[in-house]
Amino acid sequence: MIRIVVLGTGNVASHLIQAFEGASSVEVVQVYNRSMEGLDSLRFRGSSTTHLNELIDADCYIIAVPDDAVVNVSAALLFENRLVVHTSGSVAMNDLNAKNRKGVFYPLQTFSKNRKVYFNEIPLCLEATNNKDLEILKTMGRTISSAVFEIDSEKRKQLHLAAVFVCNFVNHLYHIGHEITEKNELPFSILKPLIKETAFKIERDSPAAMQTGPAKRNDINTMKKHLEILDVPIQKELYTLLSQAITETYGGEKL
Amino acid sequence: MIRIVVLGTGNVASHLIQAFEGASSVEVVQVYNRSMEGLDSLRFRGSSTTHLNELIDADCYIIAVPDDAVVNVSAALLFENRLVVHTSGSVAMNDLNAKNRKGVFYPLQTFSKNRKVYFNEIPLCLEATNNKDLEILKTMGRTISSAVFEIDSEKRKQLHLAAVFVCNFVNHLYHIGHEITEKNELPFSILKPLIKETAFKIERDSPAAMQTGPAKRNDINTMKKHLEILDVPIQKELYTLLSQAITETYGGEKL
Repeated sequence: MIRIVVLGTGNVASHLIQAFEGASSVEVVQVYNRSMEGLDSLRFRGSSTTHLNELIDADCYIIAVPDDAVVNVSAALLFENRLVVHTSGSVAMNDLNAKNRKGVFYPLQTFSKNRKVYFNEIPLCLEATNNKDLEILKTMGRTISSAVFEIDSEKRKQLHLAAVFVCNFVNHLYHIGHEITEKNELPFSILKPLIKETAFKIERDSPAAMQTGPAKRNDINTMKKHLEILDVPIQKELYTLLSQAITETYGGEKL
Repeated sequence: MIRIVVLGTGNVASHLIQAFEGASSVEVVQVYNRSMEGLDSLRFRGSSTTHLNELIDADCYIIAVPDDAVVNVSAALLFENRLVVHTSGSVAMNDLNAKNRKGVFYPLQTFSKNRKVYFNEIPLCLEATNNKDLEILKTMGRTISSAVFEIDSEKRKQLHLAAVFVCNFVNHLYHIGHEITEKNELPFSILKPLIKETAFKIERDSPAAMQTGPAKRNDINTMKKHLEILDVPIQKELYTLLSQAITETYGGEKL
């Protein structure tokens, strides 16, 4: 049995704790958070603490706190030479404090509170400084997901960057679509089948092969009409730049 | 029985013809295309022609050709006072030639050849100049979809603009994700669960409520690191502008 302590009670932490519940070879033995509030909202039935000096013995400590707090939490730990991993896409493994054995356990997914995620399909990107620790992380990973990858900090950084494009930026484009429909008293739901189909299409072929739209077919007339009816300046800029990126990719005239 | 002639053999035309196959109250009685080639690829078992003067009598003529060819095809028709509709998001109904009764039958979806779409969920945006014609279009629409909307040209233009953001531009961001993974010898498939979850999340709440990522949480450190490793100029520009759009929306510092 691999004993785990989870530090943090945010989206990633709470989803991880849920995912490990019921696993046969892994047990979350304790949850730490700096405030009681986070712990209360978690409803974790096991041991919990708000004091780092009360952390109990475990095979792996998972720091699942905001990216910019990872380094400080790892430095504040009071023990040495134990396996301490973080769950961040953008923090290098070596940013963890050197007094413990370092590792990364990065689930490549977007987590929201109150939304169940199915860990089994979530890619887990693992990294460790030695094979024994990597094996521990792999065993942990395989109990909750069938998509376990060994990925070093350099590649993980690139992956996180790609994730910002295909998730965070994509969601903002959904938001612009939402704004346009709301402003024109149209139901946003009318766009949902299109949004889903666009996401599903890439199962079949590369995004480049699936590109459609005015910019792809170099339909300058339509693009100009769209720019005329866009009245939010930054949305105009985005329209122009994204169209330009598409025409550059597929070789068309400049808008 | 409503008799339909379809003009065109592209993605929209071929999917419409397929969808009407087996409908009980609607029949595609003829397909026109300017070249034999398109007709051959279609494998339509009914009547077909490459000559506009051979078009047979029908209750509705659906012009499903590229947006910039709609007007010309509608002008080239040799009959008068029949119901002629187009399937384009960006062409106004009144751009159709005035010698026939005008209408729009716009399926809000992204179509690719060789990919089956399930019309039943596709929003159909309908418009006509009189109630009788609108009823014909509604009857046609309801035989293939449960999401039939009456939407005028002004609102359809806005909807098409929104669709460009949530489909065409989104797909280009997928493409950038694909480029980043390929360049770093990572499998693109590692991003697919994230892409799907991002698209599915909006079922639950507005995109704004679901926004995550460095720009949302004003994590300037991570954004700077991302800009450093982006080496394609227009991708850098896109990263900056999209991050700026997000911080503007949620109130953060400028990158």
